[in-house]
Amino acid sequence: MSDPLLGIVRVVTSDDPAFVGAHGAAIQARYQIATTSACIPDQPHGIHDAATERAAEPKILDLAAGLVDGGATAILISCAADPALAAARAALPVPVVGAGSAAAAVALGLGGRVGVLGLNAEPPAPVAAVLGDRLVGSLRPAGVHRTTDLLEPGAVDRAVDAARELVSAGAEAILFACTGMTTIGLAGPIRDRLGVPAVDAVLAGGLLASYAMG
Amino acid sequence: MSDPLLGIVRVVTSDDPAFVGAHGAAIQARYQIATTSACIPDQPHGIHDAATERAAEPKILDLAAGLVDGGATAILISCAADPALAAARAALPVPVVGAGSAAAAVALGLGGRVGVLGLNAEPPAPVAAVLGDRLVGSLRPAGVHRTTDLLEPGAVDRAVDAARELVSAGAEAILFACTGMTTIGLAGPIRDRLGVPAVDAVLAGGLLASYAMG
Repeated sequence: MSDPLLGIVRVVTSDDPAFVGAHGAAIQARYQIATTSACIPDQPHGIHDAATERAAEPKILDLAAGLVDGGATAILISCAADPALAAARAALPVPVVGAGSAAAAVALGLGGRVGVLGLNAEPPAPVAAVLGDRLVGSLRPAGVHRTTDLLEPGAVDRAVDAARELVSAGAEAILFACTGMTTIGLAGPIRDRLGVPAVDAVLAGGLLASYAMG
Repeated sequence: MSDPLLGIVRVVTSDDPAFVGAHGAAIQARYQIATTSACIPDQPHGIHDAATERAAEPKILDLAAGLVDGGATAILISCAADPALAAARAALPVPVVGAGSAAAAVALGLGGRVGVLGLNAEPPAPVAAVLGDRLVGSLRPAGVHRTTDLLEPGAVDRAVDAARELVSAGAEAILFACTGMTTIGLAGPIRDRLGVPAVDAVLAGGLLASYAMG
């Protein structure tokens, strides 16, 4: 049996290894599992609507297959829209986890009503499907349409403002439906300023992947 | 801030510390989190129907409150029926996880259709509620009505036989809806003989509790 190795598919193109490896580093630090990360080509702004999701799907399948060939014993598609998840599960001989359905599953298991913070006013379909009637609503931070917008000045404050609206509407936890919110470390400010836990899609994905890897 | 400590409520009465501590030992070994376990009084055969569940609920609330007073920073109600879960969440100032809804959530996040192996032909209500249309069906091993029946000779073989039926019906994973299946180490035989993964309610509960504890 091969050594456990989680292959992480990043859906934002970057030639910065630290950026590409950021989710893997967070998972490795939290769960002590080895990771290897790679990003799809030609999508510098990631997945932010139906067209960019469709464009990404074949690239994700290729990349995931390559990671398995390279020794990955499980795959995390590190995007809250779970792009290509069903196809990857059908095609690959290892467990495949999607960050979106993983985060929704973790939120379900922890109890309470959930507000979704993402790149659209609508939650990603797999997140909504898993949350069902536990979903309070979905918001995007003002001015944020693409994951890279989260790196702009003031984005953290605007994200906390949107989360505050969700809490006012009854949310007892905030689910990050964009993995860029992990990259900017948004869980801390949400917990500290609003007093509610955040379910981070990257860490939830790593959590379920670590379970699947035994 | 207190040191992280998971308080585990066992719903089977025993004066054997190794038995009471078995779930905590499994969680501690897998997730490296400190645990402390205690069992409710006067239910040597645990929870196996509506009457025994009702009888257990006030005892579970008392026991969980005592564990929190003793320093627990999160609680796991280690029973797949999630007895007293909503009441404990409302009453206690720490995260509370139920083994049943946790296992169902983990199974959802891992994908595929799920067969439930338990003490009844019907799955526990919280497990069915979370699984929704991903639930294939529920079976109990022949001759097994109470968790303690799993300790009898031949119980592992009979449990694998029941799981085989669920796999024939389309299950891609087996969810253990009785924590006694953890106690007897049933995941190994299911994986080895049937080739499908098992989602263990105790380990899934520990997984989500470890997430909630940060």
